[in-house]
Amino acid sequence: MKLSLTSPSKIVLLVIDGLGGLPRPETGKTELESAKKTNLNQIAKESICGLIDTVSPGITPGSTPGHLAIFGYDPIKYDIGRGIVEALGIDLDLKPNDIAARGNFCTIDNKGIITDRRAGRISTEKNAELCQLLNKEVAVAGARIVTTTVKEHRFALTLHGKGLSPELTNSDPQQAGVAPQKIEALSSQAQLTAGIVNEFISQAHKCLKSESPANMVLLRGFSQHPNIPTMSKIYRLKPAAIAIYPMYRGLARLIGMQILPPGSNITTQIESLHRYYEDYDFFFIHFKATDSRGEDGNFEAKVQAIEEVDNALPNLLALNPDVLIITGDHSTPATLAGHSWHPVPFMLKSRWCFPDKVKMFSERDCLEGGLGRFPATEVMSLAMANALKLNKFGA
Amino acid sequence: MKLSLTSPSKIVLLVIDGLGGLPRPETGKTELESAKKTNLNQIAKESICGLIDTVSPGITPGSTPGHLAIFGYDPIKYDIGRGIVEALGIDLDLKPNDIAARGNFCTIDNKGIITDRRAGRISTEKNAELCQLLNKEVAVAGARIVTTTVKEHRFALTLHGKGLSPELTNSDPQQAGVAPQKIEALSSQAQLTAGIVNEFISQAHKCLKSESPANMVLLRGFSQHPNIPTMSKIYRLKPAAIAIYPMYRGLARLIGMQILPPGSNITTQIESLHRYYEDYDFFFIHFKATDSRGEDGNFEAKVQAIEEVDNALPNLLALNPDVLIITGDHSTPATLAGHSWHPVPFMLKSRWCFPDKVKMFSERDCLEGGLGRFPATEVMSLAMANALKLNKFGA
Repeated sequence: MKLSLTSPSKIVLLVIDGLGGLPRPETGKTELESAKKTNLNQIAKESICGLIDTVSPGITPGSTPGHLAIFGYDPIKYDIGRGIVEALGIDLDLKPNDIAARGNFCTIDNKGIITDRRAGRISTEKNAELCQLLNKEVAVAGARIVTTTVKEHRFALTLHGKGLSPELTNSDPQQAGVAPQKIEALSSQAQLTAGIVNEFISQAHKCLKSESPANMVLLRGFSQHPNIPTMSKIYRLKPAAIAIYPMYRGLARLIGMQILPPGSNITTQIESLHRYYEDYDFFFIHFKATDSRGEDGNFEAKVQAIEEVDNALPNLLALNPDVLIITGDHSTPATLAGHSWHPVPFMLKSRWCFPDKVKMFSERDCLEGGLGRFPATEVMSLAMANALKLNKFGA
Repeated sequence: MKLSLTSPSKIVLLVIDGLGGLPRPETGKTELESAKKTNLNQIAKESICGLIDTVSPGITPGSTPGHLAIFGYDPIKYDIGRGIVEALGIDLDLKPNDIAARGNFCTIDNKGIITDRRAGRISTEKNAELCQLLNKEVAVAGARIVTTTVKEHRFALTLHGKGLSPELTNSDPQQAGVAPQKIEALSSQAQLTAGIVNEFISQAHKCLKSESPANMVLLRGFSQHPNIPTMSKIYRLKPAAIAIYPMYRGLARLIGMQILPPGSNITTQIESLHRYYEDYDFFFIHFKATDSRGEDGNFEAKVQAIEEVDNALPNLLALNPDVLIITGDHSTPATLAGHSWHPVPFMLKSRWCFPDKVKMFSERDCLEGGLGRFPATEVMSLAMANALKLNKFGA
């Protein structure tokens, strides 16, 4: 935005992953409506509220487009591969021509059918052992292939070489009960790479055969480093991320955020915010458990995760940031046990926000907020405006 | 709009400049909520209400884009230079290749540092004297350069000649405490013009040296007549403007409005509306004081300005226009003492408007209006529809 200007004011954006929910039939209340959340409600009273659509009404966002939209990037224009986000999340230094994919260690039976896509979520230590084995034993002509441990069953696969292309289908069918798929080239330039990756999978299969429970790999999201402008470039901000999960760190790094040490939970994340508060003017804090518990279909546990955030908020409010935004990247209703398309509660508190009548932070209350229902790509303009970091448009 | 048709019905659009505000901390009420405004409230009861974003949520509009959007022009597509608006506002007849800039007479100290960008708002008479001096004494090879008095410290600079380009930076740094900037060419075709303008500034500096308090010029907004379709062409309307301030007259002329004599205040503007009511079918009435008092940070005076409009309304209502729209081009909260990004109250009264539940004309009440929050570029479609000046779309 040409109108952006640098100033000392601070913006804090707290993304509560998978925040939005649906009413539980027994009570008619959503997770947010069921949680004890004094602090979130108090902030709502002092905020302008609304509901955001991160991609588009009716579209269920993945984590990457959900976050990109909140950061002001059109998530349809910037369709970032999962592989690249996973690789950046563990600090891999990727060159423009390198290819990255997201890998799972999985379990297949003796007919080659996937019985567990996550191999019972093996330990990160076991994962490291398997990656070491693959890096030592597997060698394919035409590319240097490296596997790097992410967490539990997840690893990053990177291909380094000449003439490689990410235009490939996935081997991961994203369901159990079927065999891994053969990787296909989506363009003629990708034929060579498809051959290389299929040979890698074949060798990995042999190499892992006698392992248990993880005896196979699944690959998806082949991608290259995208040409995406940084937040500093667009907004003239000095942004930092306080995120625990690798993928969100990778995403933040991709758009030029500095990665700060998060510690192990929301309390230590907010302590980190205190420690680095003077050094940056935009902070992205990511809280994951709401999404994880929603995906587990565990309504009560998601309610507890919301309460965990609420309890940590007084120490954040103590900093009195010029702009505080609390929202989510998508809804993850426990009743659906997965991401969903429902719009996500949003609130923005600042000296200049013009608070509306909303008194509770929930899906239903935010619907009556002063911002109404709006596209998440407008969030950054609102953040910048309320931080008085935007010049006037036109004469 | 291909659907437009000409009919005898009348549309009156009253733009209360900088209308929207923010709550004053002492009372929790905005300027509109604090004003005694029986007529505005009565109109709200009979209207469909809403809130408009003139440029985009979070973006603070200048006066030109704010008005263009209400007239139905995409303000990002039609980014009109300040120079051209200023020149048209004083009836200068510009040819397509002429260049115009907005000029300020200012005060600089003996080190060349700007001490007052407006030279204490010198009188219009003094301004005329200085323009005469410059037009007589300054002569630059390559272009005929004319300065024309606008008001107080403001003048229009016009360049007439061959091969000129408006792609120039400003000399006006828009702040005191620094020196005027050298004009730079933004493209290779503008090199010649940059040289001409810098030579003009240098000669003007010498010429004004012994004057006081205005001893220098500042220039900004170099621009040419834009290629913009008229309202008659788009809407098949015969539009007229009743505006006192030159800039708004310039803007209205730019899109093909006839300029009617406004007198000196909102009462005489409405008298002019009566006088010319039969001759046109669209009237734009512009009221400035709300914006000026908001920019002064004078909450009480802005409240009084709103009351001044309210008092003048019965004579407007006496005409019973087929469509009456009352809104603003942007918000100018007195607490912020400047334009802001907050959406602007809007109401439309007509036989066919389907009034909503709104009983008061204010930011908070309009949020609950039947139009919700919507882009100002939709205002003209609503005006035309309610005036029954639009054909059906499609079979």
